[in-house]
Amino acid sequence: MTQPIRIGIVGYGNLGRGVEIAMRQNPDMQLVAVFTRRDPATVKAGVPVLPVTAADEYRDKIDVMLLCGGSANDLQGQGPMFAAKFNTVDSFDTHAKIPEYFDLMNKVAGDNGHISIISTGWDPGLFSMMRLLAGAVLPHGQDYTFWGKGVSQGHSDAIRRISGVKDAKQYTIPVQEAIEQVRAGKNPKLTTRQKHVRECFVVAEPGADLAKIEEAIKTMPNYFADYDTTVHFISEEEFAAKHQAMPHGGFVFRSGNTGSGYQHIIEFSLKLANNPEFTASVLVAYARAAYRLSQEGQTGAKTVFDVPLAYLSPKSGAELRRELL
Amino acid sequence: MTQPIRIGIVGYGNLGRGVEIAMRQNPDMQLVAVFTRRDPATVKAGVPVLPVTAADEYRDKIDVMLLCGGSANDLQGQGPMFAAKFNTVDSFDTHAKIPEYFDLMNKVAGDNGHISIISTGWDPGLFSMMRLLAGAVLPHGQDYTFWGKGVSQGHSDAIRRISGVKDAKQYTIPVQEAIEQVRAGKNPKLTTRQKHVRECFVVAEPGADLAKIEEAIKTMPNYFADYDTTVHFISEEEFAAKHQAMPHGGFVFRSGNTGSGYQHIIEFSLKLANNPEFTASVLVAYARAAYRLSQEGQTGAKTVFDVPLAYLSPKSGAELRRELL
Repeated sequence: MTQPIRIGIVGYGNLGRGVEIAMRQNPDMQLVAVFTRRDPATVKAGVPVLPVTAADEYRDKIDVMLLCGGSANDLQGQGPMFAAKFNTVDSFDTHAKIPEYFDLMNKVAGDNGHISIISTGWDPGLFSMMRLLAGAVLPHGQDYTFWGKGVSQGHSDAIRRISGVKDAKQYTIPVQEAIEQVRAGKNPKLTTRQKHVRECFVVAEPGADLAKIEEAIKTMPNYFADYDTTVHFISEEEFAAKHQAMPHGGFVFRSGNTGSGYQHIIEFSLKLANNPEFTASVLVAYARAAYRLSQEGQTGAKTVFDVPLAYLSPKSGAELRRELL
Repeated sequence: MTQPIRIGIVGYGNLGRGVEIAMRQNPDMQLVAVFTRRDPATVKAGVPVLPVTAADEYRDKIDVMLLCGGSANDLQGQGPMFAAKFNTVDSFDTHAKIPEYFDLMNKVAGDNGHISIISTGWDPGLFSMMRLLAGAVLPHGQDYTFWGKGVSQGHSDAIRRISGVKDAKQYTIPVQEAIEQVRAGKNPKLTTRQKHVRECFVVAEPGADLAKIEEAIKTMPNYFADYDTTVHFISEEEFAAKHQAMPHGGFVFRSGNTGSGYQHIIEFSLKLANNPEFTASVLVAYARAAYRLSQEGQTGAKTVFDVPLAYLSPKSGAELRRELL
């Protein structure tokens, strides 16, 4: 029996906890420690919890560090810091900054002899892979991506900042009719409003002006003004009972024609009961790939586009060919 | 402008013609010649048509040879013959023989410094990739593959061998109710009969005993006995008008749970108006990958599991990260 791949987690929020949970299903890996910026005494995990500053001592005890912080505030600093000392996998998802983040991680990981797989998860991640694959097979065609039904953290936060709002969850929901048009090969031109609707569940402060809150949501630029938005005011009890899950998902289509004009439709979809646990499972599969790439002597930054699928599976090449090809 | 990748086609049936058609959509490639076992004078293509035996003279003029013969009779011989002289891509799909074929091609291609990507297309091929990817992300779960609606060549041939049958087409059709159960996360146990039905369109010889033909089809072991089969007798005119297209497609699902028990469903589907043209488009994308792997100095046999997705696209790594990640 070969040694398990030794894993560390940096950041113990929903994603970090998801990684710990995913470890149970991947017996070729072993979670060694969790690193946090909080007071470690306040964080309970199934393995030692240490301050981020203690990571240095684990350079020979951890094969791959999974960076589970957010893109907005954590990864641009933590990414290079950890890539200097460890192989890393992250879910950096600030789209506009990916090229710059890749270059930075590529330099630091490369200079230090490590592998850093960036921007894994499902979008960026699995959805990106489908867009690449489908576009390579059908060079003449059109891509469509729909998200949801799922909770958007950013939109929920935006509602919570409105005066008189105590708590809120916002669901992004794809328009079924638009999906059906794409699936039927009609290649529709769809506006923002025609692709998704937004549904908000809001707990108001006692005595708050509900009409005013609803108006503030529906007219909020960037977040809601371009969408058909529904607002439901509900009790704190109902909110606690029905809106704590973190479902998400979505659809990637490519509708294209081959040279004689025949139409072909490629569809990929995810229906996820728990977004962070699923995302964590993708990170864990890429941790296996990072370890193998590193064992081969490869270095630098990689994305899901650069990693052969075989590296994600614990099975050997011969097993994969026999069982899955 | 870099030189285009120089492509050869071996075997000019539906798949070979599909490759020629796909070349129009891939300006970074150029079709150099078609090689056939028929009398080249009887084959009309847009490039020189030559006997298979003339391929030797093209060793320095073709970068990748696309082997477009069938698995049953052509590829086991042609594969190694061409892998000794060229980089190759094929669609070998006799599932039980893939491990043996891989080993043979790996040895011949490796010994001669070539790359051979075997078993591309959509199943094996894209569907296999989805099974690997989904299984790596959701280690605890269940796979479902449905095929169709599409023409099965083998089943159509079987019907044509029945006495009194002049022509026939058989469509494999997935059972919609079974798909809906899987999509809804019910993890059904499905028998062969519950997954697909078979629909046959038959042109009978004048005076043939239709009841006897129908009985012979429906009770045919391996091919039809385990399925609910419908037989329609139609005129030669209707057959010519309505049953010449070659549609196909199918669905790959993985329904699995992450460690806390949350259920997730990954679905991939294809709806193809023309099976050989689509399959050819997959081969062409893998021809690009074969060329690049070869340029890097890699040798031996590869499958879709071994090739990073980036190698399939004409775009650069930076373009892919900016546009598709």
